[in-house]
Amino acid sequence: MRTSEEYVEKLYEMKKNVYMDGELVGRDDPRLAKSINVMRKTFDLVEDPKFKGLITTLSHLTSEEINRFTHINRDTEDLLNKQKMIRKACGLTGGCIQRCMGCDAINALSVITYELDQAFGTEYYKRFLKYLEYFQKSDLTAAAAQTDVKGDRSLRPFQQKDPDLYVRIVEKRKDGIIVRGAKNHITMAAYADEIICLPTRMMTEKDLDYSVAFAVPADAEGVKLITHATNPRPRKMLEAPVADFGFADSFVIFDDLFIPNERVFLCGEAPPFAGLLAHTFALYHRHSYTGCKPAVSDIIIGASALVAEYQGIADKTHVRSKLAHLASVSELVYAAGIASAVAGQTSSSGTFVPDTIYANVGRRHAGMNIYHEFEILADLAGGLPATLPYEGDFVSSETRPYLEKYIMRRADVPAEKVHRCFRLLSDMLCSASSGASALAGVHGGGSPVMEEILITATYDFEEKKKVAKHLAGIEE
Amino acid sequence: MRTSEEYVEKLYEMKKNVYMDGELVGRDDPRLAKSINVMRKTFDLVEDPKFKGLITTLSHLTSEEINRFTHINRDTEDLLNKQKMIRKACGLTGGCIQRCMGCDAINALSVITYELDQAFGTEYYKRFLKYLEYFQKSDLTAAAAQTDVKGDRSLRPFQQKDPDLYVRIVEKRKDGIIVRGAKNHITMAAYADEIICLPTRMMTEKDLDYSVAFAVPADAEGVKLITHATNPRPRKMLEAPVADFGFADSFVIFDDLFIPNERVFLCGEAPPFAGLLAHTFALYHRHSYTGCKPAVSDIIIGASALVAEYQGIADKTHVRSKLAHLASVSELVYAAGIASAVAGQTSSSGTFVPDTIYANVGRRHAGMNIYHEFEILADLAGGLPATLPYEGDFVSSETRPYLEKYIMRRADVPAEKVHRCFRLLSDMLCSASSGASALAGVHGGGSPVMEEILITATYDFEEKKKVAKHLAGIEE
Amino acid sequence: MRTSEEYVEKLYEMKKNVYMDGELVGRDDPRLAKSINVMRKTFDLVEDPKFKGLITTLSHLTSEEINRFTHINRDTEDLLNKQKMIRKACGLTGGCIQRCMGCDAINALSVITYELDQAFGTEYYKRFLKYLEYFQKSDLTAAAAQTDVKGDRSLRPFQQKDPDLYVRIVEKRKDGIIVRGAKNHITMAAYADEIICLPTRMMTEKDLDYSVAFAVPADAEGVKLITHATNPRPRKMLEAPVADFGFADSFVIFDDLFIPNERVFLCGEAPPFAGLLAHTFALYHRHSYTGCKPAVSDIIIGASALVAEYQGIADKTHVRSKLAHLASVSELVYAAGIASAVAGQTSSSGTFVPDTIYANVGRRHAGMNIYHEFEILADLAGGLPATLPYEGDFVSSETRPYLEKYIMRRADVPAEKVHRCFRLLSDMLCSASSGASALAGVHGGGSPVMEEILITATYDFEEKKKVAKHLAGIEE
Amino acid sequence: MRTSEEYVEKLYEMKKNVYMDGELVGRDDPRLAKSINVMRKTFDLVEDPKFKGLITTLSHLTSEEINRFTHINRDTEDLLNKQKMIRKACGLTGGCIQRCMGCDAINALSVITYELDQAFGTEYYKRFLKYLEYFQKSDLTAAAAQTDVKGDRSLRPFQQKDPDLYVRIVEKRKDGIIVRGAKNHITMAAYADEIICLPTRMMTEKDLDYSVAFAVPADAEGVKLITHATNPRPRKMLEAPVADFGFADSFVIFDDLFIPNERVFLCGEAPPFAGLLAHTFALYHRHSYTGCKPAVSDIIIGASALVAEYQGIADKTHVRSKLAHLASVSELVYAAGIASAVAGQTSSSGTFVPDTIYANVGRRHAGMNIYHEFEILADLAGGLPATLPYEGDFVSSETRPYLEKYIMRRADVPAEKVHRCFRLLSDMLCSASSGASALAGVHGGGSPVMEEILITATYDFEEKKKVAKHLAGIEE
Repeated sequence: MRTSEEYVEKLYEMKKNVYMDGELVGRDDPRLAKSINVMRKTFDLVEDPKFKGLITTLSHLTSEEINRFTHINRDTEDLLNKQKMIRKACGLTGGCIQRCMGCDAINALSVITYELDQAFGTEYYKRFLKYLEYFQKSDLTAAAAQTDVKGDRSLRPFQQKDPDLYVRIVEKRKDGIIVRGAKNHITMAAYADEIICLPTRMMTEKDLDYSVAFAVPADAEGVKLITHATNPRPRKMLEAPVADFGFADSFVIFDDLFIPNERVFLCGEAPPFAGLLAHTFALYHRHSYTGCKPAVSDIIIGASALVAEYQGIADKTHVRSKLAHLASVSELVYAAGIASAVAGQTSSSGTFVPDTIYANVGRRHAGMNIYHEFEILADLAGGLPATLPYEGDFVSSETRPYLEKYIMRRADVPAEKVHRCFRLLSDMLCSASSGASALAGVHGGGSPVMEEILITATYDFEEKKKVAKHLAGIEE
Repeated sequence: MRTSEEYVEKLYEMKKNVYMDGELVGRDDPRLAKSINVMRKTFDLVEDPKFKGLITTLSHLTSEEINRFTHINRDTEDLLNKQKMIRKACGLTGGCIQRCMGCDAINALSVITYELDQAFGTEYYKRFLKYLEYFQKSDLTAAAAQTDVKGDRSLRPFQQKDPDLYVRIVEKRKDGIIVRGAKNHITMAAYADEIICLPTRMMTEKDLDYSVAFAVPADAEGVKLITHATNPRPRKMLEAPVADFGFADSFVIFDDLFIPNERVFLCGEAPPFAGLLAHTFALYHRHSYTGCKPAVSDIIIGASALVAEYQGIADKTHVRSKLAHLASVSELVYAAGIASAVAGQTSSSGTFVPDTIYANVGRRHAGMNIYHEFEILADLAGGLPATLPYEGDFVSSETRPYLEKYIMRRADVPAEKVHRCFRLLSDMLCSASSGASALAGVHGGGSPVMEEILITATYDFEEKKKVAKHLAGIEE
Repeated sequence: MRTSEEYVEKLYEMKKNVYMDGELVGRDDPRLAKSINVMRKTFDLVEDPKFKGLITTLSHLTSEEINRFTHINRDTEDLLNKQKMIRKACGLTGGCIQRCMGCDAINALSVITYELDQAFGTEYYKRFLKYLEYFQKSDLTAAAAQTDVKGDRSLRPFQQKDPDLYVRIVEKRKDGIIVRGAKNHITMAAYADEIICLPTRMMTEKDLDYSVAFAVPADAEGVKLITHATNPRPRKMLEAPVADFGFADSFVIFDDLFIPNERVFLCGEAPPFAGLLAHTFALYHRHSYTGCKPAVSDIIIGASALVAEYQGIADKTHVRSKLAHLASVSELVYAAGIASAVAGQTSSSGTFVPDTIYANVGRRHAGMNIYHEFEILADLAGGLPATLPYEGDFVSSETRPYLEKYIMRRADVPAEKVHRCFRLLSDMLCSASSGASALAGVHGGGSPVMEEILITATYDFEEKKKVAKHLAGIEE
Repeated sequence: MRTSEEYVEKLYEMKKNVYMDGELVGRDDPRLAKSINVMRKTFDLVEDPKFKGLITTLSHLTSEEINRFTHINRDTEDLLNKQKMIRKACGLTGGCIQRCMGCDAINALSVITYELDQAFGTEYYKRFLKYLEYFQKSDLTAAAAQTDVKGDRSLRPFQQKDPDLYVRIVEKRKDGIIVRGAKNHITMAAYADEIICLPTRMMTEKDLDYSVAFAVPADAEGVKLITHATNPRPRKMLEAPVADFGFADSFVIFDDLFIPNERVFLCGEAPPFAGLLAHTFALYHRHSYTGCKPAVSDIIIGASALVAEYQGIADKTHVRSKLAHLASVSELVYAAGIASAVAGQTSSSGTFVPDTIYANVGRRHAGMNIYHEFEILADLAGGLPATLPYEGDFVSSETRPYLEKYIMRRADVPAEKVHRCFRLLSDMLCSASSGASALAGVHGGGSPVMEEILITATYDFEEKKKVAKHLAGIEE
């Protein structure tokens, strides 16, 4: 396994293909540093005794110890451990740990490439295993590039006026393929080793050029990463871990990019395989979400409980009820992840797949509640997160005495703690990154509407109708 | 194991102590027949191949095959099986299977009597095991009598003007105790073999007379059961299983009732044991609820999907979204039960105890959603469940042709099916028992407010505050 | 104006055409008595000093004093008075006052018949005025028959396999028309003087036979009323006004019914007039709903506050918050009615029309909250409404002492008051009529989905987009 | 009336007492410019024909034309006009128009100073009228400083360890009083002419030193304004009005400030007058909120409808339903304001006071829905507001072609419009000011919890209980 230094070293040596605000920049651009800190954490935690056996495991391929973020799940236990690792790691970085994306992508490929081979006599699975071995050995990080830009949302890929609005194969060569298009909202693309491109939806017979999946080094010729960083609000004086972590998303442009055959994992095969791959990735990712979303809730719960304590209202009935509600959201989502692992099944390739319904009801519950969770935090915090004076005023000798006198809540909580608490709340509620977090809570990993579509498609409503018909005395 | 005939035979031989609408009646009163049908089901299913290994298991005491409703849970598997059995059985009877109450009571006693002995050197656990052996061997059913009448809700037991408003020990004798008081809302008391009385809440040092638990035959001298039956709306012509099952609740009066020592399981011991027993029973019962509540949802889902199909609106976006929401409620509650079983722990007596947080967030989610589930069903059904003509009009030669013509929805669904469907919906939405079901969905097994209290008391908010403090840079 | 005795006398003389449970019955059938009580109230209140100037007004036609339920609204004040009258009257009868239907129907006809004449040179308005004069002079009651049976909900009227699934003109004669079809959910049809038939939706050019409106005596040859009564749960001993009032809905069959020209108000005219009439009636009716729905909420609020007081929990934070929420629902709906009256406009016939948006957001808010209001009442009431012993047990000398002892809550509230309170709650939550009330709260007068369609169609979204475009710097 | 230039000129001449980030700054500090733009608008609109008769009116004191923001309301019409003016003006500035605060403060003083005189024989009302004349003539702007810092929320003012945690009178002199303390969250204090200080809550007999109200020039000796500006996200290239407006809040420090008698309007008088003044101001301000909050909703509705149109999903059922919901929230709040004006009453001083219940249910509905409104916008917008590339990348020749190609939605909407739309959405959802707006939506003008307290205190629950008792047959 790599150290975080080795990860960063490789990163800094990559070809420049990141664009930020009109400039072509290196991966050492300071606007990316906070995001890279998150990724570093996933390497550093390998040394942390609290993550022993959690962030490391044995490769089913080589039996060597690997980072769990490069692991193929083989049983319920694996999924439970992944979920737990994600919750704990996200708690430390104040939000999304990001690296699960690549992990979820390789798991989905391990399931579907095998099934493709069964159906078409291809050799995708063999290719994949070779790629996997390289991936695990090199302890790589990968961004999963799934979401196409999609153009007019009422039209299918082949119906768009501009055919490039979904990533597509523009040419098949002997040694590989040429692809064109763009994926957007791709978190960590600008500081990942690899980009794994997957289809974003079901494809029909008319959309075959859009049925494509592949892996590519993130700095390959033809890849351009137009990147937006969501950084924490900077601290001038009052240092705090919350200000150390961020994330950056890229518009990933594939400008007639060449992919050699050994890195192509789906290439124009007929339905339903593009859709299956899309859904299988989404499924793993939604299961990951049952780990990270409770971590976000944990932070909201903690901040809510803390500000209630400092204000002297922790024992009020309405406060207790709100805290219980937050805890319920968090634990229902986590419970859905556990149930998804317990009810999961082994696919034909031997990879263990979480249960669809539980993963989807869990992710949906998270997505439907995130704004309300922030609302509860806002409710308990009062207006100060929005109106908190600047850090400088807490330092200046002219204003400091006033602020230290008047920011006091309970007499036994010193002014600095109150200040720190509200500075955190201000970051959590009234910063650019707080808005992005809430939005990510709705849409990251598939929005509630997407989960409803999956639930509608896969839930056994016929069985339930039978129950009702039986009670009604209706014969089939 | 008994047959349902044997169960009923014993029932009919019991001493008359059931009062209904001003009369002292036998247990063969027709108003109880629909409720008894539910209990019969729990005996009959032993023969049903679909319940093989589900409704039967081996006693950990005697290794003999027993009905799972008399079983002490020993591991995660036991809890998962109990949950599954309850969901399936409730589906067949259109709601609450009832018999889980006694099962949950003996499980709670198996945990707390052991702990009492550890604390006080008593012999409650030995007594309990003897009772358990009898209970399993005789394949008994028991009502758990927990909810006291409670008088003024703002006062503790010892503060009430009338000291009998919580069940209490009025005399301790050598050979047993005399108890007085009443429990209400006690489902199945009027057709159970036994009544197991448990404390309803935490008791303080001043409430020691109220710290009492015992088992008593349901027709013992001194027990009076003032009973209200909630029966399905009767069908005059259109027979259907929904009309076969009901439930009946009793005001259980203990009128200076004598309990011999061997049936006393808590008798004035100091805190916190009354509270622990109350909570442990509630915990098992809430876990049971994660099985029965999804069954109720299943019926609502099925009826919703069916009426949408018949009306020709099954593929409308808003309908699909509502069905997905119903499925989500059901499966989140079920997932919480699975997680509670997975995260459960073995108590010192060897009995396996479900996890508190998951059981409570699951039960709370159910209780908070039940009215909304009925609302969705009402929304999809339209007004006909309320305005459906009487059965007679569907039979009379003068009106039948009109109704069969005008009740038609989709041309391929015959009028009788539509009629049957709306008759079921009318029962589910506009009958006395539908209202009672909704109320039971809120309060049965502890209302959401009760779960919030438990969550507030047991959730590790300090741990979450630490997460927030760490991010804020606040040192302890 | 008539007395209630005169109203009933006329009713009892009507031709038998009411069918209940397979029998042809007179309007003196005891199952209709409770419903007739409601209608009687609308005559009796004319003598009530508290309704002075509220339930009576002057006819704009004859300047004579008339019952407001027969009045054509001429200004804001009229609408405010109608709304107030409805709220107060509904409070006295425990729910829907019913007679507003006919009033809303004549108001809609007064607007649209005038506009039809403007468009087509017909004489509908003159006909209508003549009918109105008769209606006011005779102090009539009318059921508005709007909702067609509609068959397959995914098809328009002309697409149905059976063409009669919407009421239609089967023949036009010189002296009148023959109509066929059925309307359902028609409250008070079985005890109204008249039935006013209106279209249920927009009609296209292909649906012209379905564009029809007329008035007919409720016992006319060719009208058959298959009727379902929703009666309060009967009281055996404990008399209470809640048990005095009910409602009954009919499947109204028009079996090749002849309507003379002077009672025909729309007859195959081209779009959009059928739709306009449908919507104008719905608009008046939704405005009426902003009066009756707050009355239902008032009862729920009162019952909630009362049971909280009796239980000794009235000052708990969560209780106060729930009561405040109930009050908010009620008053927001009422406020929407006021705003609808203030923002209303005079139509070309001189009739004053409530504002569409406010009436619809008000009705929608009511419909979306009714189940939740019952849920709050259920929450505060606890389980006793479902498990309350029978009346007889409160009387029998054997059980009465127990129940009077153990039903006690606060020591200063006598057992009988507690009993009466819970008997009311049981009626409100666990009776057949409570379910029907909730369903009526969702669907009566147009369900939330219908209001959303109206809002979507009429709200000025373009104006709002302009606001957003301006801020975004987007030029048109 | 002043021009906006005159307003700014006076502002820039004020004594330096604004502190920002450790510096003492002038009111010409660029960080205040966007906030001052809002205030300028309230002067400029006087010339706008669309605001004719809306933003100007006649003083009841001098009969001269004045800015409505300095007007004392005399009837329903006045309140309706104020509400309408606020909604329209807020639409132009993208949010809070701010100047209503001072207007609401003088209205509250006009009511309560009169009542104080009636009770105590004081001359506050005379003082107030003199101040009002000056205020109207000079066309002043005032910040209302109500919210005390409050220390431990579980303690009353006199119980706090530091007695200064609520603003208090530290000395009464012949010619005036000395006050000490701090108010926080005081919007516009740093760019108002005047600060009007009002009590924040009910005061008991023990809190008399805290019963104080007065007006003071914003730059008086002893006033210090520690100020935080919430500015829109700056635009580098893509200019848009949304980026022109902001707001700034101050910690207002009263450091042993002297107030001459003629500016003191409450000075230690016994209960309930401090509370009445607090509530009357809150009441006017909540009524103002029924104007500004619908304006915020209008912007959210417009942005939602616009992005739905651009994405090609405007006609989807779920989109229409969400838009209808947004419109419903907006119009219910506005309707509550109308009803509050219609049901208002003339106080003894002749000032017209909005109805308490309607103003409070309106404000509460707004506060309870604001996060959900942003959630709907987020739902419809997708992830792009969070991941939108920087402005520079839309300009740079290297990246512009990619972004213009791939940001396309519907083929007939040019890339720049799409870009502008998402830039607005990014400002509305993912900027520091968006978070502050949401928080202000919850807490500004009193949070939902505060409204519930008011509703609980003033709603006629006894009347509702009577309705329930009547139906139950319970005699008083």
